[in-house]
Amino acid sequence: MRATVIHAPRDIRVEERDAPTILTPSDAVVRVVAACVCGSDLWPYRGVRDTAEPRAIGHEFVGVVDQVGDDVTDLRVGDFVIAPFTTNDGTCQACAHGMTSGCDHGSTFGVTPDAYGHPLGGAQAEYVRVPDAAASLVVVPGPVDDDLVPSLLTLSDVFSTGHHAAVSAEVGPGKTVVVVGDGAVGLSAVLAAKRLGAERIIAMSRHADRQALAREFGATDVVETRGDEGVAAVRELLGGDLADCALEAVGTAESMDQALRVVRPGGAVGYVGVPAGDPELPMPFLFAKNITVGGGMAPARAYIEELLPDVLSRAIDPGKVFDLELPLDQAPEAYAAMDERRAIKVLLRP
Amino acid sequence: MRATVIHAPRDIRVEERDAPTILTPSDAVVRVVAACVCGSDLWPYRGVRDTAEPRAIGHEFVGVVDQVGDDVTDLRVGDFVIAPFTTNDGTCQACAHGMTSGCDHGSTFGVTPDAYGHPLGGAQAEYVRVPDAAASLVVVPGPVDDDLVPSLLTLSDVFSTGHHAAVSAEVGPGKTVVVVGDGAVGLSAVLAAKRLGAERIIAMSRHADRQALAREFGATDVVETRGDEGVAAVRELLGGDLADCALEAVGTAESMDQALRVVRPGGAVGYVGVPAGDPELPMPFLFAKNITVGGGMAPARAYIEELLPDVLSRAIDPGKVFDLELPLDQAPEAYAAMDERRAIKVLLRP
Repeated sequence: MRATVIHAPRDIRVEERDAPTILTPSDAVVRVVAACVCGSDLWPYRGVRDTAEPRAIGHEFVGVVDQVGDDVTDLRVGDFVIAPFTTNDGTCQACAHGMTSGCDHGSTFGVTPDAYGHPLGGAQAEYVRVPDAAASLVVVPGPVDDDLVPSLLTLSDVFSTGHHAAVSAEVGPGKTVVVVGDGAVGLSAVLAAKRLGAERIIAMSRHADRQALAREFGATDVVETRGDEGVAAVRELLGGDLADCALEAVGTAESMDQALRVVRPGGAVGYVGVPAGDPELPMPFLFAKNITVGGGMAPARAYIEELLPDVLSRAIDPGKVFDLELPLDQAPEAYAAMDERRAIKVLLRP
Repeated sequence: MRATVIHAPRDIRVEERDAPTILTPSDAVVRVVAACVCGSDLWPYRGVRDTAEPRAIGHEFVGVVDQVGDDVTDLRVGDFVIAPFTTNDGTCQACAHGMTSGCDHGSTFGVTPDAYGHPLGGAQAEYVRVPDAAASLVVVPGPVDDDLVPSLLTLSDVFSTGHHAAVSAEVGPGKTVVVVGDGAVGLSAVLAAKRLGAERIIAMSRHADRQALAREFGATDVVETRGDEGVAAVRELLGGDLADCALEAVGTAESMDQALRVVRPGGAVGYVGVPAGDPELPMPFLFAKNITVGGGMAPARAYIEELLPDVLSRAIDPGKVFDLELPLDQAPEAYAAMDERRAIKVLLRP
């Protein structure tokens, strides 16, 4: 089969690899219908994170169950499934509390080996083996309209992650919210905040196309400035006040600092940007301001069931974050387009 | 009047000072009935924090209104009042959200000047001027039984702060809770967790007298070990699991690290220890574990109204944290006793 492999910074190749097979009785193998490139895939692409040796990459996909292990009774060959970007066993303490991304046996696709010592492939490929398949995969009741595939794919990571930022920042009816970051996760966070009933949603964005999508997703205001000026702009929009909630969707020290500074005393920051570099949380500032900081790797598996009905009913269309679709063979171009900001997020079809 | 003044590390003196007077129409002057020494007062006492010049010290007190400014219509001379350790104007965004410790015009007793440029005395004295008195002070319906004074005094800071740790860590019915720190704040956090319905409360303590009070306050278990051993002990008590909540009541890097490591993925840490040194929050760890961190300076003013009925009805007796009572003149001995751990917390009577 074909699979996307990162060899080094800016060296992405689509190569022939052995197709995955069932390795344990709880495995399934999924034929990928759609995958995509994540902002966090750009960290190794840009060399911000090391690539010690070539590895399969990608962790977001939807597809059709192709094979199941003997213990997998809840899935059938032919089921259309959404794969959360992390697997989970469904039985540990974290899973019992719905924090599936903190599972004792969890692993992220594209990071080998899995928690049981078996290799785990990347999602930007034709087939993917899924350990703990019954607990990890979510079946979409079929038949599945093809035009829904992009939005279903966002539940794998990007929209679930935006939702996690909003949940972690305690977004709800009447709240004022600032979203820091206008990438696909930030835009998803805008939509999630709107869905949760936020009263004001201020998107910090300097790109016209992203501002437009932010407004379509529910942003009531856009702030183009950053730092002190950005804080002042938020205050001006809110009548001198700061926001109740900030959603951090980048992962740098600068973006976290911005998020912390736009919320009022007693406010909350939900962060989902994968920490790049060494962002620090300034304890004396947090202590004096009583700012709650929550978030991290989204428990997508736990959120999919809540979010899926709104996608299936077309109440929301998070798939709009995909502004470019390419065949899998053009994965290198997908990375380049996102790296150069020619695309917000690229969907790949094997 | 007599007031306690810190001159340098381990140099605490009770001196004659001018009694405070009304400086603005929103002031009140309170005759102190009881004050006390806070664990955070030990930072300058021990030299962990600098004392640039001699200053009045102490921020916790209850007393009787002695004078009021012309604009203070809600308070009467003779009212028995609880002073939260920070003043608040009652009108800003933070106050509107109940985060009174983040008030735009807030200040802490014993730190001069106040937000309006006037000197603000310490609480370990005979009289204290209170700016924004109507918004800051809480009247206790009289007559006030003298034996309730210690518990009423804890609402000024220490019990409200323990409560803040518990609220910030989302303690509630059925939750498992670890309390890091067995000083007066940690013990208050145990009582607060019990009051909020926690199912298991594990106190980390190595001192027999504090363990006893922790159990009296509601701790179901005591762990004497620290670090990896402490984590393992918590796991053993919880059947292999980690806690839902950790309450950090010290303020050092070690105690924060301990708190972060005893909670499960998706758990919460409420911290109220005044940060000493430079405790850091390890972002990659928080990101991977989805641990929410909240807390800071307790909004005591907002909590007093919730907690006061339970003190007046004697449902709780947080005043038990005072295991030594001295006349104000012996303030230096009060500091020494707490520094040398001969006392948990010392009450001072002018």
